[in-house]
Amino acid sequence: MERIERVAFCGLGIMGGPMAANLARAGLELSVWTRTAGKAERFAAEHGVRAAATPADAAEGAQAAITMVPDSPEVESTLFGPEGAAATLGSGALAVDMSTIAPTAARAIGDRLAERRIDFLEGPVSGSRPGAENGTLTIMAGGERAAFERALPLFEAMGERIVHVGPRGHGQLAKLLTNTIGAVTAAALAEAVLTVERGGVDPDAFLEVAAGSAAASTVLTLKGRRMFEDDFEPLFKLEHMLKDVRHCLDEARALGVDLRLGGLAETLYARAAEEGHGEEDFAAVITAVR
Amino acid sequence: MERIERVAFCGLGIMGGPMAANLARAGLELSVWTRTAGKAERFAAEHGVRAAATPADAAEGAQAAITMVPDSPEVESTLFGPEGAAATLGSGALAVDMSTIAPTAARAIGDRLAERRIDFLEGPVSGSRPGAENGTLTIMAGGERAAFERALPLFEAMGERIVHVGPRGHGQLAKLLTNTIGAVTAAALAEAVLTVERGGVDPDAFLEVAAGSAAASTVLTLKGRRMFEDDFEPLFKLEHMLKDVRHCLDEARALGVDLRLGGLAETLYARAAEEGHGEEDFAAVITAVR
Repeated sequence: MERIERVAFCGLGIMGGPMAANLARAGLELSVWTRTAGKAERFAAEHGVRAAATPADAAEGAQAAITMVPDSPEVESTLFGPEGAAATLGSGALAVDMSTIAPTAARAIGDRLAERRIDFLEGPVSGSRPGAENGTLTIMAGGERAAFERALPLFEAMGERIVHVGPRGHGQLAKLLTNTIGAVTAAALAEAVLTVERGGVDPDAFLEVAAGSAAASTVLTLKGRRMFEDDFEPLFKLEHMLKDVRHCLDEARALGVDLRLGGLAETLYARAAEEGHGEEDFAAVITAVR
Repeated sequence: MERIERVAFCGLGIMGGPMAANLARAGLELSVWTRTAGKAERFAAEHGVRAAATPADAAEGAQAAITMVPDSPEVESTLFGPEGAAATLGSGALAVDMSTIAPTAARAIGDRLAERRIDFLEGPVSGSRPGAENGTLTIMAGGERAAFERALPLFEAMGERIVHVGPRGHGQLAKLLTNTIGAVTAAALAEAVLTVERGGVDPDAFLEVAAGSAAASTVLTLKGRRMFEDDFEPLFKLEHMLKDVRHCLDEARALGVDLRLGGLAETLYARAAEEGHGEEDFAAVITAVR
């Protein structure tokens, strides 16, 4: 199996930026593109890689193209738009979408790429910005086993817990479900934080006992203090969490499952987004319960 | 400060039994009482302590009485019933209630004991049966500082993370809130497990990625596999979780907070209890979403 050495990376946001930086550090030959003009050039200068003017330009000569963008419309335009990466990716190349998108959209994208003999793998991630920066992401891959093994050296440069969840769509479904559990947990934590405040209970004491209780979670560790302090500097944007919960509700509905807690979380995150907290960290869901 | 050496322990259930055993192991002179006839005798024989016929009998000559029973009516009858412990506890003794009850009930019990010059401390715990057995409970104490310091050697024989949360009621409120967060998290996990099943995703792969995701939590670790396997052997009974969520909703309402996720969890746990799962582990909440 040919080892991948030349990679096009599309999308240098909160997550994509540090992920691409880890690929550069691992010695891969990188060409980068991102929507915001000037950002790819700055990144390229800092990391000694090539800045591309378009996704097609980035994918020129690359063996693999990675997309890390907000949602499926952006994945589709990055791959299939007028200057999309699919136009220049050669037959037998690999496209890896690490965005979190709807499983049905991931399946459709894979089908379109297959028509061009481009292999496709989904690899959504967990771990927010710190995980992306430290290369400790969890990667939930979905697709064919051979494509997974081909992508593995790339994943190993960015992640720590790398799992081939199953066929196409299963990685995305696992990701959507874990984020929805996280979204519900954060909303329940927000309700508790508000009650702690109203009850005059010491926040430090509450956080200390909670860490050794049935409430102990990654969400508690990362968001508990932030909620008490109204510190919403984004590690993972509320509007992205809302998008994931909505995709999850749709997917579950298609499978005949009514996610009632997920639905209530959706209401709260939507309210917070409407009130202008979409660009903040999802800890800002507390604004919707206050 | 007089060191407590003689302790009456009332309530030898899933939690109380192993907690009392740890006090016996720590060398305290123990007299035990529990509602089920014969159980105290068996416990006493096994641990070399004294079995008492009534709470009053257990408290005879004790410097402290600990209650670990289902709810406030049981705490009240154990302390103030016709053969209650308060009748024989001397002036200046300490009563420690480690049950999880409503903060308002805890305050009232403390007031009644104060009339008899008996100090009162609440010390609800987290950690389920394994925490009780291993002496690694989290103890959320509420009451006066001096009473807390007096109880500390006892707590240290049963727990690991021991926090004086604040005045009376604050320990109970912290406990109710952490359990409610745990109840909501478990219900959200149950919805996800059902979706994983319907979607044909591999449970092992899902649990592995979830452990490195926004869904990572104590609830996931302890209940995830059990939900897939319908293993509801009780570590913490569903009916006790339901009781705690209800107390929490009441307390929050009194503080002007509407716990919407908590309220939805209450609906689901109540349905599971009505369908006969009250005596099972609270992982059985999945039966209410299936």
